[in-house]
Amino acid sequence: MSRQMVRPGGRSARVQAGVHAAVRELSAEVGRDALTVPMIAQRAGVTPSTVYRRWGDLQELLSDVAVERLRPDTTPGDHGTLRSDLTAWAEQFLDEMSSPSGRAYIRDALLGDPDGGNAGRCSAYAAEQIDVILSRAAERGEETPAVETVMDRVVAPLMYRILFRPDGLDAEYARQLVTGIFDNAGTGAAD
Amino acid sequence: MSRQMVRPGGRSARVQAGVHAAVRELSAEVGRDALTVPMIAQRAGVTPSTVYRRWGDLQELLSDVAVERLRPDTTPGDHGTLRSDLTAWAEQFLDEMSSPSGRAYIRDALLGDPDGGNAGRCSAYAAEQIDVILSRAAERGEETPAVETVMDRVVAPLMYRILFRPDGLDAEYARQLVTGIFDNAGTGAAD
Repeated sequence: MSRQMVRPGGRSARVQAGVHAAVRELSAEVGRDALTVPMIAQRAGVTPSTVYRRWGDLQELLSDVAVERLRPDTTPGDHGTLRSDLTAWAEQFLDEMSSPSGRAYIRDALLGDPDGGNAGRCSAYAAEQIDVILSRAAERGEETPAVETVMDRVVAPLMYRILFRPDGLDAEYARQLVTGIFDNAGTGAAD
Repeated sequence: MSRQMVRPGGRSARVQAGVHAAVRELSAEVGRDALTVPMIAQRAGVTPSTVYRRWGDLQELLSDVAVERLRPDTTPGDHGTLRSDLTAWAEQFLDEMSSPSGRAYIRDALLGDPDGGNAGRCSAYAAEQIDVILSRAAERGEETPAVETVMDRVVAPLMYRILFRPDGLDAEYARQLVTGIFDNAGTGAAD
């Protein structure tokens, strides 16, 4: 996580945007493993010490960039029912997170993260998306589980398998996890 | 994961044991972040090229050592019922994995693991322990869930929260996850 608060629109925000953009460009050009802080600083037009001062080291900078890439840029789609909304969201989440770039971002987010703040942000993004889906369902009058139930029953198993057992992961597995919430006492009763 | 097959008792196994021991000793003496391959090789009485040839780089070596540290060294305790066995195991798993050293080992195991083999071994250790518990319950005549159900419902949420949201994790949460399997259709019906 950034060591300084970033004031939107100020010099600090411009530096952050420039350094993040430099990381993304150079990752595409030379590959992530060849990145160095001096190379990134030169591309962003700042001094290496500016980068070290704000991010600590390369690993923390990469973690920060990864979390930005993992931030959802759309609201979950409205498919008319809680079950279809959750199913579509879970399939898309699995698709994005289990892709080679998704897996690389998750690893970066987890690893350059001494205080755990970046991993927490990733988890908060998922919880916010689920909250949108559950709130919409509640407005429709549907019975809804708690956000934490969906985190435990859908998000956690998907992420666990992406990190530890990626073989054979598919959309059918994501659908089964969502179905599991509706098949038993998990709906509404838990937590 | 090791690049060569290790023949138990042979020179290769002795080199591996010596290098692993050197990593553990030096981690305790100088701290994990100060480790270098030449330092480890010297302590283990091998050449640095031996280490690079077998492990590729420091990160892969640390991953290999971490997985060894994460390997359970006892059989899950027998507390008379499936529920009490699973509860005791889940509490112990959370306790070990969420400790500072447990979290460091998990990070190392995931990080220096380009082919995913080490993460898979961590997951296999948990699955084997659960299988022991379920087999014992089946012998007692108890109805048992599938191993994969316990992985999804207990192991995955624990590991997800250890990695992404460690605040407030406690034994009560582990117990609730186990209770969740018994409270609904998760038992026996799933998978």
